Amino acid sequence: MALGEFDLIARYFQRPGGQAVLGIGDDCALVAPTPGMQLAISTDMLVEGRHFLSTVAPQWLGHKALAVNLSDLAACGARPLAFTLSLALPRVDEAFLEGFSRGLFALADAHAIELVGGDTTAGPLNISITVLGEVPPGRALLRSGARPGDALWVSGTLGDARLALECFRGSVALPGEQFQQVRRAMEQPQPRVALGQALQGVATAAADVSDGLLGDLGHILARSRVGAVLHADALPRSAVLAQQPVAVQQQCTLAGGDDYELVFIAPADQAAAVQAAGRAAGVAVTCVGRIQAEPGLRVVDAQGAPVAHGLASFDHFKT
Amino acid sequence: MALGEFDLIARYFQRPGGQAVLGIGDDCALVAPTPGMQLAISTDMLVEGRHFLSTVAPQWLGHKALAVNLSDLAACGARPLAFTLSLALPRVDEAFLEGFSRGLFALADAHAIELVGGDTTAGPLNISITVLGEVPPGRALLRSGARPGDALWVSGTLGDARLALECFRGSVALPGEQFQQVRRAMEQPQPRVALGQALQGVATAAADVSDGLLGDLGHILARSRVGAVLHADALPRSAVLAQQPVAVQQQCTLAGGDDYELVFIAPADQAAAVQAAGRAAGVAVTCVGRIQAEPGLRVVDAQGAPVAHGLASFDHFKT
Repeated sequence: MALGEFDLIARYFQRPGGQAVLGIGDDCALVAPTPGMQLAISTDMLVEGRHFLSTVAPQWLGHKALAVNLSDLAACGARPLAFTLSLALPRVDEAFLEGFSRGLFALADAHAIELVGGDTTAGPLNISITVLGEVPPGRALLRSGARPGDALWVSGTLGDARLALECFRGSVALPGEQFQQVRRAMEQPQPRVALGQALQGVATAAADVSDGLLGDLGHILARSRVGAVLHADALPRSAVLAQQPVAVQQQCTLAGGDDYELVFIAPADQAAAVQAAGRAAGVAVTCVGRIQAEPGLRVVDAQGAPVAHGLASFDHFKT
Repeated sequence: MALGEFDLIARYFQRPGGQAVLGIGDDCALVAPTPGMQLAISTDMLVEGRHFLSTVAPQWLGHKALAVNLSDLAACGARPLAFTLSLALPRVDEAFLEGFSRGLFALADAHAIELVGGDTTAGPLNISITVLGEVPPGRALLRSGARPGDALWVSGTLGDARLALECFRGSVALPGEQFQQVRRAMEQPQPRVALGQALQGVATAAADVSDGLLGDLGHILARSRVGAVLHADALPRSAVLAQQPVAVQQQCTLAGGDDYELVFIAPADQAAAVQAAGRAAGVAVTCVGRIQAEPGLRVVDAQGAPVAHGLASFDHFKT
């Protein structure tokens, strides 16, 4: 890219003002975290075909690239502070940059988080974001705190993003309005940042559901050295997904991925506090199981019968 | 990539222990900065063909990917704290990962900086690193502090990396040992982290030389709203470069790029303090000019005659 083209890119990403001591334009940005707070840091890289489809509108790609990173802060209960963006672009495309930056900054503004560092280069499309947040010492939600007897919760609904992906793949057909609804779930996930912070001191463990509930819950169980029983029929799902065959519902809710909801653990006597956190954050929370001392994850239906869920063998859509 | 391949990647990047409160393996890493310090943040993305050649050994690619980021912290005078790595790989190549991680961690260990977050994905080769450092409030070296009468300094020597690039391009031929020397300058830059910290309270402005001295000095002049006279013949260069025609020497030192030295500004009466900082950091520092109130950069030779240096027209190697 020529120098003038980099100026063009800068135009879409440099904004006046902000909370940072020093924003974009020097060798480093300077940020003053609240003294005594711990920093929470996470990074995610998005590549076309793997993390998003070529059909996504630039606006929603900008939104999602930041959303998946904020979701990691949410899972730790951290308050977002700032983020950096590295962007490789095959060519300078003003329509793309306008939409991408618009979606990115709309979500950034909604969470009062500032872009403090950036790098742009010519290359195959690649979006890498690093987010910084802060959390009081000892209050971060880790994956390692679940204890036998604790209750297992999820936020929002699960599975719509995967249902949308299967529509794009042609393995499921939905009427137009239903398709638009699940497509929004896939392209415009809402990171549960407020819920994560509200769960500080309530939840004993948390993760965000990015790779699918079974996998992400599995990380909590492994790090906490516990097991769990999970009630598949209790998993919250949209009215659209609830009209699909049971096998599709189970695939999408248990192993769908791209949900960006929180799966979290709380002491059994904290149900009222969890519900209050959900109300404060404006998102539904649903109890879907219980932590057990016995290792392993037991997925059961409403009658208590086991639901097969081998991560490899269970993939309904795999060809 | 299959799950097992991601495990393989993790094996090369997860290391036990470290200073972070919580390292890789949860949704976020947790780092406890020194209370009251400001955070310095920078990010750089490296793409093959643009930032490195396919001929580079994986070890030196790992080194350089971190070095160019540490160089930004050095330019701010910040002490490195931690870094994140996002890596897109076309395929899992154990020899690449072994060498890359070895070079990366050797430099990280030399600067006592920890990898606290990572993401790996299948995709065209792309390396994105974000570094965090800390600096006492008001002590960061910015680009904006240069004042008329201040002296203009550079660290180390300039131009060898560009000379090496021209060897790879075939426009310059060097004997084997000389080629190896300039190749090391290109592939194994040493970020001037200790010098940057030693210049806190001494330098009034600084930047790292990544795009070429004229361009990076130009940023300082623009942000400081001053001009400068630069003595081209005073620019420090290696014995290898000093044997090249004068036009090549000027091109490489003035506009070479990829040097990762510091260009910095200090009050004229601080020469002894600058020399002491250089000695403490183990790197030569050379006074190469002076800041002036009149805007613009005037490059002169030993006789005081102007040296043509139009950034576009001056490129000796451009075809």
